[in-house]
Amino acid sequence: MGKVMRVIRTVKEMKGVVRAFKRVGKSIGFVPTMGYLHEGHLSLVRAAKKENDLVVMSIFVNPIQFAPGEDFERYPRDEKRDFNLAEKEGVDIVFVPSVKEMYPRKNLTFVEVEEITQYLCGGKRPGHFKGVTTVVTKLFNIVMPDRAYFGKKDFQQFKVIKRMVEDLNMDVEVVGCPIVREKDGLALSSRNIYLTEKERESALALYKSLLLARKLIEEGETSAERIKEKMKEFILSFPHVKNVDYVEIVDQDSFKSVEYVKERDLIALAVFVGDARLIDNWVVGEEL
Amino acid sequence: MGKVMRVIRTVKEMKGVVRAFKRVGKSIGFVPTMGYLHEGHLSLVRAAKKENDLVVMSIFVNPIQFAPGEDFERYPRDEKRDFNLAEKEGVDIVFVPSVKEMYPRKNLTFVEVEEITQYLCGGKRPGHFKGVTTVVTKLFNIVMPDRAYFGKKDFQQFKVIKRMVEDLNMDVEVVGCPIVREKDGLALSSRNIYLTEKERESALALYKSLLLARKLIEEGETSAERIKEKMKEFILSFPHVKNVDYVEIVDQDSFKSVEYVKERDLIALAVFVGDARLIDNWVVGEEL
Repeated sequence: MGKVMRVIRTVKEMKGVVRAFKRVGKSIGFVPTMGYLHEGHLSLVRAAKKENDLVVMSIFVNPIQFAPGEDFERYPRDEKRDFNLAEKEGVDIVFVPSVKEMYPRKNLTFVEVEEITQYLCGGKRPGHFKGVTTVVTKLFNIVMPDRAYFGKKDFQQFKVIKRMVEDLNMDVEVVGCPIVREKDGLALSSRNIYLTEKERESALALYKSLLLARKLIEEGETSAERIKEKMKEFILSFPHVKNVDYVEIVDQDSFKSVEYVKERDLIALAVFVGDARLIDNWVVGEEL
Repeated sequence: MGKVMRVIRTVKEMKGVVRAFKRVGKSIGFVPTMGYLHEGHLSLVRAAKKENDLVVMSIFVNPIQFAPGEDFERYPRDEKRDFNLAEKEGVDIVFVPSVKEMYPRKNLTFVEVEEITQYLCGGKRPGHFKGVTTVVTKLFNIVMPDRAYFGKKDFQQFKVIKRMVEDLNMDVEVVGCPIVREKDGLALSSRNIYLTEKERESALALYKSLLLARKLIEEGETSAERIKEKMKEFILSFPHVKNVDYVEIVDQDSFKSVEYVKERDLIALAVFVGDARLIDNWVVGEEL
């Protein structure tokens, strides 16, 4: 039996506890989440446990990173289930602030990464990354982690946060962890819960289109335009695909589109399957 | 004879030194400046020395808080003089990074306080406070102060930084210190060096217009409009006044204009005297 996980709901208590640990020289690994945990989140916890004395997970569905009309209200929440999964995985402290606790009055201060947030999900969800970088800054200031763990399913988010940390001289190592997939290849996401059984089959379109891209590249195709076109066509052949939000092939640092594909480029896509907006990506040359 | 002051020019060394002090439980007082020190800065150092084990001063003329056409290039710099003054006052560490050290590549990440930066100097100098809050965040992350000291001559800056710290859950106490004036009332400013002898006389217009406002209020005047009009007229009667940038009477929290003056309201002004843009202010009911 492991230790009992501590549940903290206030900024004040979280700050106090963390600072006590820091004073005695303990290192802190931090896994920020929006809850409704899956194996992807748990893989971050395992990475954090290996490298730190203490693992803190936050569960907070951050309203300011959702645009009006997005799924803030219906985003899945299940605290009890999350606490069980987190405790079993060995999380030491779970930080679950209310919206009021995180934003006690109108928030006027924002942290924004420019340029690289104009593309992909940033282009399609204006204000999204501004909400993400602002809440992550707040969480970093509260939790004071030595290392923070992010999944590479949100590859752009991972890079945006890395850039923010470097630009603002924050004292955190930002660690990116590989995408975790179901046996059939579907990238794990809390939003997969939105899918009906039939839609779940169509959701494989994302992963399979990345396999297609890899095959085309292996066969010698270099034109980003042709690869993207073939991917889109392929994705739209799945019955429950409503809409391809984007398929892009970009430089993984600038996030600008490339004309010819090369190693390290990022192939990223967002697709609406039923009511769920799903994302996936592959860095050319890496495992898939 | 006091201790020798340590001069640090790199972020890495500054971070290392500060963290060593933090580990042994020392508190850090921080005085961020753009150098060309005067008695105002030194009063901040004295306040910091009273309340902290260690006093760190930064000297950095931050390019991103100057708009094109402002005085970034000609802003007065004199390192030797500054080091002497700082050391005499008991500063333990002076942090003097180069622009390249603070911005090693194009900075993409900005911290911005919205709404309250739209008025007064924020309204007249677009982007100014965005540059200030960004560099102050960087400096806070590097220096990790327990307390940071700001002069209330830049009253709006003091409040903007206070708001930023609260909104982002930063672990710093923001301390505002009273304006330091010459014997005749001129608020100390590094920019006073721009004034010729004749202009120096006209620069008193700012302080004297605040005295006029106080007198009007004491006599029962409550109309912000009438007070502002009389102040402007008075200021423009000084020979070397080029232009009144603004005279405003605002709520000191929202920075919105008030119609009727009451205690705690802020009377703030910016005036071009010769080539110098000078600012001053008075909080109604406080000392002047």
